[in-house]
Amino acid sequence: MNHPTSTPATDPIPNVLAERYASRAMQEIWSAHGRILLERDFWIAVMKAQRDLGVAIPAEAIKDYERVRDDVSLERIKERERVTLHDVKARLEEFSDLASRQFIHLGLTSRDLTENVEQLQVARALKLVQFKAVAALHLLAQRAAEYRDVMLTGRTHNVPAQPTTLGKRLAMFGQELQLAHDRLDNLIARYPVRGLKGAVGTQLDQLTLLGGDTDKVDQLEGRIIKHLGFKAAFGAVGQVYPRSLDFDTVSALHQVGAAAASCATTLRLMAGAGLLTEGFQEGQVGSSAMPHKVNARNCERVCGFSTILSGYVTMTAALAGHQWNEGDVSCSVVRRVALPDAFYAIDGLFETFLTVLRQLEAFPAAIAAENQRNLPFLATTTILMEAVKNGAGRETAHEAIKEHALAAAKALRLGGDADLLARLAGDKRVGLGKKKLTEVLRQNERFVGAAPHQVDAFVAAVAPLVKKHKGAAEYRPGKLL
Amino acid sequence: MNHPTSTPATDPIPNVLAERYASRAMQEIWSAHGRILLERDFWIAVMKAQRDLGVAIPAEAIKDYERVRDDVSLERIKERERVTLHDVKARLEEFSDLASRQFIHLGLTSRDLTENVEQLQVARALKLVQFKAVAALHLLAQRAAEYRDVMLTGRTHNVPAQPTTLGKRLAMFGQELQLAHDRLDNLIARYPVRGLKGAVGTQLDQLTLLGGDTDKVDQLEGRIIKHLGFKAAFGAVGQVYPRSLDFDTVSALHQVGAAAASCATTLRLMAGAGLLTEGFQEGQVGSSAMPHKVNARNCERVCGFSTILSGYVTMTAALAGHQWNEGDVSCSVVRRVALPDAFYAIDGLFETFLTVLRQLEAFPAAIAAENQRNLPFLATTTILMEAVKNGAGRETAHEAIKEHALAAAKALRLGGDADLLARLAGDKRVGLGKKKLTEVLRQNERFVGAAPHQVDAFVAAVAPLVKKHKGAAEYRPGKLL
Amino acid sequence: MNHPTSTPATDPIPNVLAERYASRAMQEIWSAHGRILLERDFWIAVMKAQRDLGVAIPAEAIKDYERVRDDVSLERIKERERVTLHDVKARLEEFSDLASRQFIHLGLTSRDLTENVEQLQVARALKLVQFKAVAALHLLAQRAAEYRDVMLTGRTHNVPAQPTTLGKRLAMFGQELQLAHDRLDNLIARYPVRGLKGAVGTQLDQLTLLGGDTDKVDQLEGRIIKHLGFKAAFGAVGQVYPRSLDFDTVSALHQVGAAAASCATTLRLMAGAGLLTEGFQEGQVGSSAMPHKVNARNCERVCGFSTILSGYVTMTAALAGHQWNEGDVSCSVVRRVALPDAFYAIDGLFETFLTVLRQLEAFPAAIAAENQRNLPFLATTTILMEAVKNGAGRETAHEAIKEHALAAAKALRLGGDADLLARLAGDKRVGLGKKKLTEVLRQNERFVGAAPHQVDAFVAAVAPLVKKHKGAAEYRPGKLL
Amino acid sequence: MNHPTSTPATDPIPNVLAERYASRAMQEIWSAHGRILLERDFWIAVMKAQRDLGVAIPAEAIKDYERVRDDVSLERIKERERVTLHDVKARLEEFSDLASRQFIHLGLTSRDLTENVEQLQVARALKLVQFKAVAALHLLAQRAAEYRDVMLTGRTHNVPAQPTTLGKRLAMFGQELQLAHDRLDNLIARYPVRGLKGAVGTQLDQLTLLGGDTDKVDQLEGRIIKHLGFKAAFGAVGQVYPRSLDFDTVSALHQVGAAAASCATTLRLMAGAGLLTEGFQEGQVGSSAMPHKVNARNCERVCGFSTILSGYVTMTAALAGHQWNEGDVSCSVVRRVALPDAFYAIDGLFETFLTVLRQLEAFPAAIAAENQRNLPFLATTTILMEAVKNGAGRETAHEAIKEHALAAAKALRLGGDADLLARLAGDKRVGLGKKKLTEVLRQNERFVGAAPHQVDAFVAAVAPLVKKHKGAAEYRPGKLL
Repeated sequence: MNHPTSTPATDPIPNVLAERYASRAMQEIWSAHGRILLERDFWIAVMKAQRDLGVAIPAEAIKDYERVRDDVSLERIKERERVTLHDVKARLEEFSDLASRQFIHLGLTSRDLTENVEQLQVARALKLVQFKAVAALHLLAQRAAEYRDVMLTGRTHNVPAQPTTLGKRLAMFGQELQLAHDRLDNLIARYPVRGLKGAVGTQLDQLTLLGGDTDKVDQLEGRIIKHLGFKAAFGAVGQVYPRSLDFDTVSALHQVGAAAASCATTLRLMAGAGLLTEGFQEGQVGSSAMPHKVNARNCERVCGFSTILSGYVTMTAALAGHQWNEGDVSCSVVRRVALPDAFYAIDGLFETFLTVLRQLEAFPAAIAAENQRNLPFLATTTILMEAVKNGAGRETAHEAIKEHALAAAKALRLGGDADLLARLAGDKRVGLGKKKLTEVLRQNERFVGAAPHQVDAFVAAVAPLVKKHKGAAEYRPGKLL
Repeated sequence: MNHPTSTPATDPIPNVLAERYASRAMQEIWSAHGRILLERDFWIAVMKAQRDLGVAIPAEAIKDYERVRDDVSLERIKERERVTLHDVKARLEEFSDLASRQFIHLGLTSRDLTENVEQLQVARALKLVQFKAVAALHLLAQRAAEYRDVMLTGRTHNVPAQPTTLGKRLAMFGQELQLAHDRLDNLIARYPVRGLKGAVGTQLDQLTLLGGDTDKVDQLEGRIIKHLGFKAAFGAVGQVYPRSLDFDTVSALHQVGAAAASCATTLRLMAGAGLLTEGFQEGQVGSSAMPHKVNARNCERVCGFSTILSGYVTMTAALAGHQWNEGDVSCSVVRRVALPDAFYAIDGLFETFLTVLRQLEAFPAAIAAENQRNLPFLATTTILMEAVKNGAGRETAHEAIKEHALAAAKALRLGGDADLLARLAGDKRVGLGKKKLTEVLRQNERFVGAAPHQVDAFVAAVAPLVKKHKGAAEYRPGKLL
Repeated sequence: MNHPTSTPATDPIPNVLAERYASRAMQEIWSAHGRILLERDFWIAVMKAQRDLGVAIPAEAIKDYERVRDDVSLERIKERERVTLHDVKARLEEFSDLASRQFIHLGLTSRDLTENVEQLQVARALKLVQFKAVAALHLLAQRAAEYRDVMLTGRTHNVPAQPTTLGKRLAMFGQELQLAHDRLDNLIARYPVRGLKGAVGTQLDQLTLLGGDTDKVDQLEGRIIKHLGFKAAFGAVGQVYPRSLDFDTVSALHQVGAAAASCATTLRLMAGAGLLTEGFQEGQVGSSAMPHKVNARNCERVCGFSTILSGYVTMTAALAGHQWNEGDVSCSVVRRVALPDAFYAIDGLFETFLTVLRQLEAFPAAIAAENQRNLPFLATTTILMEAVKNGAGRETAHEAIKEHALAAAKALRLGGDADLLARLAGDKRVGLGKKKLTEVLRQNERFVGAAPHQVDAFVAAVAPLVKKHKGAAEYRPGKLL
Repeated sequence: MNHPTSTPATDPIPNVLAERYASRAMQEIWSAHGRILLERDFWIAVMKAQRDLGVAIPAEAIKDYERVRDDVSLERIKERERVTLHDVKARLEEFSDLASRQFIHLGLTSRDLTENVEQLQVARALKLVQFKAVAALHLLAQRAAEYRDVMLTGRTHNVPAQPTTLGKRLAMFGQELQLAHDRLDNLIARYPVRGLKGAVGTQLDQLTLLGGDTDKVDQLEGRIIKHLGFKAAFGAVGQVYPRSLDFDTVSALHQVGAAAASCATTLRLMAGAGLLTEGFQEGQVGSSAMPHKVNARNCERVCGFSTILSGYVTMTAALAGHQWNEGDVSCSVVRRVALPDAFYAIDGLFETFLTVLRQLEAFPAAIAAENQRNLPFLATTTILMEAVKNGAGRETAHEAIKEHALAAAKALRLGGDADLLARLAGDKRVGLGKKKLTEVLRQNERFVGAAPHQVDAFVAAVAPLVKKHKGAAEYRPGKLL
């Protein structure tokens, strides 16, 4: 083979998860540009607090930094990094040179900056995921209500088992999402930030800077935590916060995505049986050879994102439990990949899933036709009850029904119609005519049990969540590629 | 090769996680015997509630079941299963035949029984894990307090970075465990049970049994949930509860275990540097060839358990998101393995980790010797400050210190002594004599920053938890193999 | 909660993978009893070789060991381990005490014994897996040949796409298994054993024992490798062989199992559409409420085993890359679990999959009925070609066909019949009567392309493999629970 | 929170693995631009073959396509995709519009194009990985030879165990890499391509296009496979090749990376003990506060890449075994991420690892000093032997040595010097003076066993591999960020 070369390529390689699938809001949280602004705000906040606590930083210096805050050049920073081989130093020098000052980063180590800023990115991204989860819950509730009473052939082992309703099926997946949402909600509530802890976590440098005054150190940290918008902070950490918190985060994302994936998997099954479609976006090209073919391509994509998330679970699961002493950077490249990419993936998942939930179109007639094929089988217990009520002997009727059910199933397999209804109607041992049997089978509400009531309960449970998250009900996913 | 045969082996193959590592309390939760008793209690509770709600079950029948409740023969049940190839049916028929009655399992499907009983096992096991996590937090706090002020060479990238204290290092890992504990605590608080939902989750059969009265169905379920001891129940589920709840559970276990593994990893590093020992159990045989060699074998085992848990995370992560319709049993064999084995693993991890925390013995003199080698390097900033205070020019002194530091580091690599102190003492540019320098380096409290205070805060945070979990402080792990 | 206790439970907890699912042949490879015999044979082989190379071991001593070789008491050994807390030492002392001699294990470390014996277990188990993979390939070829020409509605995105044949579909999964088999075959061919390398891999102790003669050391190792039946050995290892070899092994198992799982997944889909059944074992109880319901329970189980294997992949993936120096035992508990359990899982998978392949029963009439519903859609290109041949204008006919296809698809969704054939037959723009159209659609061989030929090629490729592995074609899986 | 918006961000988000870590050669294989050229070459090759086999494609049309082959505009293609929502269609129309022709893609489905082109990317990338693995083996052999006889304190359980040599330790990790290389080599040798199989794998469309002539279909496929440079092709596939082949691929990458990670982990341990440095790149900034501190940052990064790869193993492990019928696209987004990113990760790993191996600098004096501290402990067996040879009673000497070893170990823990040599020298029961003892301990070759010989064997094994892969010995990694 040719000798591989190692000079940089001219075309930048895009992050496919970010660029093809994630929303702009998620991109902005993780973009290099956005991160640099977060860092600069952080440095400025630290300077101000330090000045207030007595560190000799001129007010003008702070203003000089504020003036150049928005002058971000990724190219210049990259250039610096190529020289120093140290990314934080490159961004630090760039900012100070722009301001022609040397007052940021006093008593800080790189990690005092990066850990806190990255946790801020995580916290914001978690909230965005929660917002979209609530948007999905809203749509699931809406759709469940719409199809509350549409009887559907429920399946276990993928074969017809008992009737349910389409609305109940959607509520079922909605409830799985609700469970995941509750976990996410708790994570957001307790997510602790590392704070200003210094090189090995002892707060030595701030303590020195502030004349050994632990109260001042506490005040400084308190102000920074407030600036970042966190409520909880770690007390005793090393150079880094425990990486099991990243696992906490990414595993929560996987759980949220899994609920959507369960739903999408079942929608794929239903599309295969011709019971519904995930819909077409305007302008979308189906199979040109087969224009009638509507692929559950977006549902498949939701499942794909879920699989991707399981990989980031493994990466962060492997980081957890492997801290050496006060910390090292063997986690660095992993977190550079796994954290943003996991968030892009869950965001792309929701953009896709929300589109599916909006465009989803059930085919009630096809659903009813499936019921008609299966209902006689599923209703044998009820038919037996009616037969007995009508005077038939229980054992005799049971035997007759079983006989016909097996014969009908066999007929189906031989490619014919099951026609179980006709078979039963023609048997005197059962004693119910075709009219009566048809009537029984029409009493949908008799077969779907508490399904509609469960839908109502789910809808009611979702309402306060939607109310709490302003805008979630109105959120529209972006156009999918 | 010889034709493999498929007849059952005579020697039963034990579950190595359960038998070698897990405690009896955890074994009992998951044992076949224990599970059968839970099931029988469940059936009896359902019967009683059904009878109270009007189902025609004679009081004597219930007594007949209660009378034979403890007559458990795994062998007879296995025999039945070999015939029916259906494990629930085997246990059902055994119980009814013993009682000579046919009143259990009315209107129930297999999953109405198994889902609830398995969730009960999970819930109990989660509480046992929490108990042991609190026991570990207690010991970590105790040990951290003990070594609160023992100055230690803190390391990042595994090389000396800044001083900390041994107590602080233990508190740091303690705080990682506390984070995991909080997640576990939340999971236990919100863990919902499936309840009596029937074949596809519509509660059809109970509704039919109770004359279509949804109130009665609600009362029945309420009584059963209360019997099981749960506070929350799913409203809308299918045949099964969402398997992402199992991922929720197992990923929480991994997070708990990871905190211990981080600690164990660092203890292994410290044992390698001769700074401490995880201790010997009475009677334990070390390396016979090298009687002085104390291997961190238990710490290694803790890390091993953490790796095991990451595998069960993958299994349950793969279950999540893959429900087909109202559920199927492709998850069955996975849950039979992953749920108990994950709990055995975390239990074995804690039995081992608690032993380590009890037997752990630091070598303060060796720790001090390491400090002495490294402290002059770690203290260069402080020395500079003192030199300037003493009248040296800042730049001159800085240059001198840097010169000596590099020379001393080089000397170390050449196999000599660094002797940085002597080098500095001999340089007039620094202007501090050996006595003064030694004095500076002796002021440990100057170098460890807020470490001791962080220990105090950790100890204070753990105290209420320990108080809440009676017995945790006194818990003694079993003897390890 | 009650204070958990840690005394051993009375009931042994079985390994569910081994006891419920694995074959006796696989159990024997991994049983404690079987392993002890392998170890004793190993010790005896080493003694004999050492004696031949000049080490002072009396021939009678060897005989004394051979005499007690089969006297295995797991209980006595366990008792010893409880005292020494060292499992190898326990087994060593037991054997020597039985023989009243002290000649085994000369110059060996524990790992010289355990690494080699465990690799022997792995190698034997790999060959058993290969044997069953070939048995499955044989059945897949047989079944593919049986259904070679049975036209089937091929699906992509789970919706009808183009016709294929049932035989071709089975051959497709067969080829995935063949790919995995080839990887397994290569692994078996190159699987290297650790050999007698001593405490840190330098062969120091054997070298000392054999008077510093490296030739003798080589001869000794050569004899032991031959005794074990390996062809390749590592040259430079530490205390342990590289754990990435375990990942090599377990990932190969997952790949083999995945081929079966892909097939099982599709069989589950087909069972859901009523096209086939995985069959019933004699005596198996289906759903009592619905006697006609045939669940694809074994196929689901195959998928479950595949998920389990992915977890052991994660465990061994996490071991790989984490060796510390010449090795440690943080991998010990992981390998105790992951290696046998992965082999039990793949073995259980094959026992189940082979049962499915034997009992599988297609419903050709149901398959034909599905074709009839879909074929007109799938055959539109062919119909267009015929219309043009018959004199229709290409664009006109194309437009007409598209019109009818969309209308027919809409009718289907509205619950009616598609009846595309009738629609086309009635349109003069197409110009083909019902008779002609029916005739076209009957020419199955026209629609299935090269599918039958691909079946033939697959069958031909499998034949030599089956021939090479004696007994594979005749192998019968055990009765499933 | 603010309403998230979904319009595209202005700043493109780069793929961090590609842009920060991977080499240009790897970037080019996976770049959008490079892929489009591969596709166009593929289309042209198919056209030429089709024309030769009688399909009516004018030679001029082919020339028109060839003329515009290099006119690649990612922006125009992206624009098209935004309209059609179908990426292949966008690239197809762009190419045809540029050529003002309509002859490409005749009888092809999207997957006929994409599967083959992606497999070509994989195959090329695999060869690049092999090339770098050989480059690493070359450096490991070179370094092992360089340090062949440098005695080193071998460690198990991370504590001193027996002497080895530094060269042997490197050869040990080299052998792990060799094992992985052999697996990779086999994968490359048997890697089969999907070929032109049509929508569901039956080759129907090519068969129709070529007048039903299966020979011509075979010739066409044969020519395309040859164009792609593959030796093996699948016979029976569906719409897609089996995804377990992707698992085969990515798990091989993880295994290769794991060998490097094991080595890097141990180098990190050694750097922590001051025994070596991974070196500095020119211009690299260490810790400014501690200029003497040399972090094993690149080694940590190698470990990080290995962790990343384990996540892609999970993703592809989850794809394997989940094919639905003839295939779907739930794998699509997963493969878009996991395949290139896994290759970028392994490439970044090797760029880093090769840099480490080049810059690695051992500190022989520090290594010797460690030996001196530990050797008396490690050499007790040899000392005993000498004592006995010198006339001491075996049991007496053994007891004395053990006594002193324990006392010396205790002294070490108390912060003092072990001074075992002096202790032994002073004991008449041992009977060897300080001079004799010192002499014994100086006989390094006596303690390192066969380590140097194992190095020689490893070096010899690597040589032919390096010879076979031209340029590997000379390959220089790019400058690291």
